[in-house]
Amino acid sequence: MALPAEFHEIAKQVNNWGRWGAADEIGTLNLITRETVRQAADCVRAGLRVPLALPLREDGVQTGAIPGRINPFHTMVQVNQELFGPGTVACSDDAVTMGLQAGTHWDALTHASHSGRIYNGRPANTVTAHAGARFSGIDKAAPVVSRGVLLDVAGAKGLDRLPGGYAVTPEDLTEAEEHAGVTVRSGDIVLVRTGQIRLYLEGDRHAYAFPSPGLSVRTPQWFHSREVAAVANDTLTFEIFPPEIEELWMPVHALHLVEMGMHQGQNWNLEPLSTACAQEGRYAFLIAAMPEPFAGATGSPVAPVAVL
Amino acid sequence: MALPAEFHEIAKQVNNWGRWGAADEIGTLNLITRETVRQAADCVRAGLRVPLALPLREDGVQTGAIPGRINPFHTMVQVNQELFGPGTVACSDDAVTMGLQAGTHWDALTHASHSGRIYNGRPANTVTAHAGARFSGIDKAAPVVSRGVLLDVAGAKGLDRLPGGYAVTPEDLTEAEEHAGVTVRSGDIVLVRTGQIRLYLEGDRHAYAFPSPGLSVRTPQWFHSREVAAVANDTLTFEIFPPEIEELWMPVHALHLVEMGMHQGQNWNLEPLSTACAQEGRYAFLIAAMPEPFAGATGSPVAPVAVL
Amino acid sequence: MALPAEFHEIAKQVNNWGRWGAADEIGTLNLITRETVRQAADCVRAGLRVPLALPLREDGVQTGAIPGRINPFHTMVQVNQELFGPGTVACSDDAVTMGLQAGTHWDALTHASHSGRIYNGRPANTVTAHAGARFSGIDKAAPVVSRGVLLDVAGAKGLDRLPGGYAVTPEDLTEAEEHAGVTVRSGDIVLVRTGQIRLYLEGDRHAYAFPSPGLSVRTPQWFHSREVAAVANDTLTFEIFPPEIEELWMPVHALHLVEMGMHQGQNWNLEPLSTACAQEGRYAFLIAAMPEPFAGATGSPVAPVAVL
Amino acid sequence: MALPAEFHEIAKQVNNWGRWGAADEIGTLNLITRETVRQAADCVRAGLRVPLALPLREDGVQTGAIPGRINPFHTMVQVNQELFGPGTVACSDDAVTMGLQAGTHWDALTHASHSGRIYNGRPANTVTAHAGARFSGIDKAAPVVSRGVLLDVAGAKGLDRLPGGYAVTPEDLTEAEEHAGVTVRSGDIVLVRTGQIRLYLEGDRHAYAFPSPGLSVRTPQWFHSREVAAVANDTLTFEIFPPEIEELWMPVHALHLVEMGMHQGQNWNLEPLSTACAQEGRYAFLIAAMPEPFAGATGSPVAPVAVL
Repeated sequence: MALPAEFHEIAKQVNNWGRWGAADEIGTLNLITRETVRQAADCVRAGLRVPLALPLREDGVQTGAIPGRINPFHTMVQVNQELFGPGTVACSDDAVTMGLQAGTHWDALTHASHSGRIYNGRPANTVTAHAGARFSGIDKAAPVVSRGVLLDVAGAKGLDRLPGGYAVTPEDLTEAEEHAGVTVRSGDIVLVRTGQIRLYLEGDRHAYAFPSPGLSVRTPQWFHSREVAAVANDTLTFEIFPPEIEELWMPVHALHLVEMGMHQGQNWNLEPLSTACAQEGRYAFLIAAMPEPFAGATGSPVAPVAVL
Repeated sequence: MALPAEFHEIAKQVNNWGRWGAADEIGTLNLITRETVRQAADCVRAGLRVPLALPLREDGVQTGAIPGRINPFHTMVQVNQELFGPGTVACSDDAVTMGLQAGTHWDALTHASHSGRIYNGRPANTVTAHAGARFSGIDKAAPVVSRGVLLDVAGAKGLDRLPGGYAVTPEDLTEAEEHAGVTVRSGDIVLVRTGQIRLYLEGDRHAYAFPSPGLSVRTPQWFHSREVAAVANDTLTFEIFPPEIEELWMPVHALHLVEMGMHQGQNWNLEPLSTACAQEGRYAFLIAAMPEPFAGATGSPVAPVAVL
Repeated sequence: MALPAEFHEIAKQVNNWGRWGAADEIGTLNLITRETVRQAADCVRAGLRVPLALPLREDGVQTGAIPGRINPFHTMVQVNQELFGPGTVACSDDAVTMGLQAGTHWDALTHASHSGRIYNGRPANTVTAHAGARFSGIDKAAPVVSRGVLLDVAGAKGLDRLPGGYAVTPEDLTEAEEHAGVTVRSGDIVLVRTGQIRLYLEGDRHAYAFPSPGLSVRTPQWFHSREVAAVANDTLTFEIFPPEIEELWMPVHALHLVEMGMHQGQNWNLEPLSTACAQEGRYAFLIAAMPEPFAGATGSPVAPVAVL
Repeated sequence: MALPAEFHEIAKQVNNWGRWGAADEIGTLNLITRETVRQAADCVRAGLRVPLALPLREDGVQTGAIPGRINPFHTMVQVNQELFGPGTVACSDDAVTMGLQAGTHWDALTHASHSGRIYNGRPANTVTAHAGARFSGIDKAAPVVSRGVLLDVAGAKGLDRLPGGYAVTPEDLTEAEEHAGVTVRSGDIVLVRTGQIRLYLEGDRHAYAFPSPGLSVRTPQWFHSREVAAVANDTLTFEIFPPEIEELWMPVHALHLVEMGMHQGQNWNLEPLSTACAQEGRYAFLIAAMPEPFAGATGSPVAPVAVL
């Protein structure tokens, strides 16, 4: 089975291989310039800090449907342990086992491959069980601080959340941009709100997972033309699921990560940010969303913060 | 064995229990105001982003000397797996097991206790193996974004690094402040550079661990008087180790975490920041250092970033 | 809330503290003698080997209801890795994270405590998050090889499985013993079949977990009088659940582990053994059920085998 | 680089592909018959039980030299937790993360591959990071109970341990067999003692690991001709390391696991068994060495027991 012609046509249009040189490992993060960062800082007016991560818990968003992607399993390795003798200062320490893509996370560019290739045309077999990703591991991602823009697609339509299975189109993104009163620029990190995560927050992780609204296969071209640095949203699957085109699974992953070299974020809680932006009447902000630099990893938990 | 009178005298002077109410769980993070955040954003002039985390690797800073604190153990759970059939888009996924205090991290206020108490006078036994920290878990820490100030103690003395076993004094902090040309203010996050981490970066994790320079038992009063929100440095032990006062182990941990309710960071790589600040001639910046919100955890890895 | 008088009365009758000396850490495993082992070997006539462990899988018996007890999470750390260069012999290696009581397992004597005490009257606080069980860890359990006897309680009643919530009584044990045509002797390891595990094997782990048939609070006296060395069965909860006596939770655990010092096994798959014993017309066999010797652990997975 | 002709010649002589049918997944374990098991039981005369596993500890035999093979990392998830309210029966529970080949273990047949093939000629790529071993996972290994024979190579030479780097030859095995006064038969599990593990038991894990005595590339033919069911020894590397033939790494692994389909055991503590056999004057016994049935795993910890 090969990927359909439709996929390859879009891939051709959005492909960034070689754009930042043959040695490049970070793709569209190259679009964040010093000027972008300065403009991001200019967005800080109210001094408001809005965190975007879900708590990391054993009863996190994973349902067991994605094999191997386990919710954080947290254990204590010391509890008020008086390491230096009775009556001394005591310590508590913890350990965790978790899927790096289990909660609020970034996909590294190596999280997806197709036709034997990863971003920048490198062979997919440079990812191994032994050493992880030799190229474009999440530890290579440049410091992820930029201007952020919230495209509140659900809000722009007056909805709490989009229906399950709704495909967010380029037209929806433009509509949300107008609603926000801000123009997406080169180097921006775009947050697309569907409202889907409300289902998880209300206690139903199965409904949250499936069916899910998400990005249409037509949106990568929109992000490409706007020169977006990275995109995150508030769903488990990121893209519309089940997919729009029969038997074409995860095309947006392949277009963003492999063709464009654009990092993606999932399971971001955009509810408080949606409220804050509406109250402030501003949808652009400084965003810091640093991945934990796991060497050779294909993803990482992240605790993003928007500063307005 | 009880803690010595000297400890209790200092504890009395820096104690913040009740200062932000009986229900408070975040201590000096309360000192970060909207105005602090706005002033932090004003520090962004060059648009420079400097990451402060060490890579997370199996050969990280832990030597095995601290029981249970294991370096990140990273495994792949999928490698270019064509989940939906041959020829489809493929995925790679990872998992990790690690000590939450193993690499670049924040100590939660519950990381230490003494005399059966944690911050704000709560009983230490509210931390359990079962549920972790009922109060003041790292997931409770307010969004950690503020103005950061680098106090380059080693640099102020013209040294690459302080000698092993050197106790950083309040006078050293004041000297570094003058060297930086900046006054530490209420709500600031202070980064204290000793240069010790160069030993790890050069490949010797044992020399890095011990003996270590670090904060003297006299410094908490300095941080208290300046109303600092949090302190991090570039050592494994944070405070001078072995300790200054015989049989008084980890007094700075107890004073900061338990008495003051002030979060601490360890194993922060301040080398590139030291270079950047010296080149820019500015030692204040916006800092974002969001802990991963592990529910009930007594610490968390962090990937801090300074923006100048 | 204190444990009811009824509990304390039984406890008094079955208590073994001091029976094998103040230093003893293994309790009724002391009852297995060289003669017991020789008689176990005499039970081997057909040369039949019947394994009693469930496969260790991510979709194991745990439902998430017991906090922290996770099913085995298996990952590959090498996949056909040619460690010594291209064309050399390749290796595959694995790692696992799991709850030690998650699958087919033994409870160590320290798995339960009551009134601040563990087996042999030691303080319960000799179990710590830091070091596990200082006494009676599963690594201390003497080699677990003995004569095994299957008491097929369900089979003796002509049932595939006992109803959920059925309390197995001493009379039921005696009935099954008669059905087996064998007399339980000092040092025997007794396997009690309820048939409950059929629910898991048929795919319904929730029904398997609850409500469950299991041992009545009256059975410890039966095991005590027969001088049984250890008992295992084919349920998640081991004892009847929910409990027979309101507000008296897990009394059988407390009686066996704390008072008698008798190891318990759970989630043992006794279905193939039931068939084999019926076919052979013999219900006694050699059993080897060695715990993995995790230092200081309060339980361990086990892969028991009955040899007839 | 290809494997040398010498390797392929031996491979041809010992190859068992197809011997037990194209569907076979267990290789020489097929040689254990009911009669073998009966004869094993006949070896039980003194009723002596000798365990052969090392304790599972954070300071186990792994030195970090083999990437990803971590020593057991044990944590408590409950410590005397009164799950059902104050004063109720309390529970302690544990979890572990470990390399399945880290301690005393069995290699599954899929632990090695060469020239793209695993045992019985199947493609090596049937082992994946996603699902582990589709064929010949350790969970497929038939109940490992048989007659065991200790070939005390060091003891037969009057040595406490063989020198590091000593290659155990077929002649050495025959010598040890004569010393034991027993003839190795079809279906036997052979334990080869080098004494190397004394180095670990004395506290020097680095000396234990390297250089190591171990089986010569000539020994697989000996095991093949005797129709041995499985072989284990008391070293980390199993075979002589560094290898006898330059650039031919791990040939014995490839011959045993891939060509013969014979399971191998490493890090078995044969010291107490050596003493017991010498005292009893008997070197044959019943052995039970059940792998934990991790689904699709390429190895498993094992707690073997010899019964004399």
